[in-house]
This record gives sequence, structure tokens and C-alpha cells, in this order.
Amino acid sequence: MENKSDSDVIFVGKKPIMSYVLAVLTNINSGYNSVRIKARGMSISKAVDVSQLVTRKFSKELKISNAEIGTEELTDKDNKPKNVSYISIEMRR
Amino acid sequence: MENKSDSDVIFVGKKPIMSYVLAVLTNINSGYNSVRIKARGMSISKAVDVSQLVTRKFSKELKISNAEIGTEELTDKDNKPKNVSYISIEMRR
Repeated sequence: MENKSDSDVIFVGKKPIMSYVLAVLTNINSGYNSVRIKARGMSISKAVDVSQLVTRKFSKELKISNAEIGTEELTDKDNKPKNVSYISIEMRR
Repeated sequence: MENKSDSDVIFVGKKPIMSYVLAVLTNINSGYNSVRIKARGMSISKAVDVSQLVTRKFSKELKISNAEIGTEELTDKDNKPKNVSYISIEMRR
């Protein structure tokens, strides 16, 4: 298996949790050494669940290597700036 | 002002977000050097919001010094074990 470096970021949103678990595992099985998932607002809890399912149930070789939280400025429907919290979780073998 | 070490953990749950912001600021203003907030399940997003409000809007001296995620085993109403994700965020001056 080819050993690539780091995969793209997977954004966790409104899909069922297992879609994101599968996306992480697909990236890892295609040879990446690390995967980063990112979520904003209410999806932050889901991103943490994804990381826990992956590292505790589905992949013995992946560990959480970094968890970062912060704020991003987005624009809402009326083009007004809006601050949204995010989490970015890196898993690495 | 007396300089105490680290405050107790503040659990973020179902109260309005500003109650937790206030709890953090009260701890810091009473002399603690650091405050840790913790949340489980769906409250994880709220805990991140609390940390962002505190460090970006309400306190220039507090910075996020650590963000940790993991899983805790709790028992539900029927005494069955249940895995719940948590986040623990430390803010320090």
C-alpha cells in the first residue's frame, strides 16, 4: 500500500454519523497517515462522536493527535458577518 | 488579590450559555489562574461556544491552554452502560 501523507479535511455536518466514520476509514485505508475532521456550531458534538467511534471501535491504529477549537467568521444569508465556533480533530496512525 | 492555583471544573449542561460564561469569569475574578469546563454529548458545542465567548469577548487575559476529547462510560436510567463523548477545555491566564 502506498504511503501518502495527510488526507484532506472531512467536514462533519448533517449526514448520519456513520457516513463520516466511513469517510475517515476510507481515507486511512487508501494509505493516508492522518485524517482531519472539522465541524462548526451544533455539529461539533457529532465530530467528537465520530472521532471516538473511529479510534475506539473501528481502528486500533488511529489515535487522536490534535484537537483544536476556535472561531470562524462566516457571512449569513443576509451577508452579515457571524461568528461560529469550530472544532478540528486530527487522527493519526 | 490572592493568587489561587486552579479552579474546580465547571460542567456545561442545559442552562443558558451566559450562565457558564459568568461562572468562568467569577472563578477567574476570585483569583484562580485557570478554569476548566467540561461537557458531554450534545452540550459539547455549547462548551466550545462558552470558551470562545470568554476568550474573545469577555477576558483578554484568558487563553485556551488545552482542549481534550474522550469517552466516558455512564449508566443510563435502566442501569445499562452507555458511552458518551466529552470535551474538557482549560483556560489559563
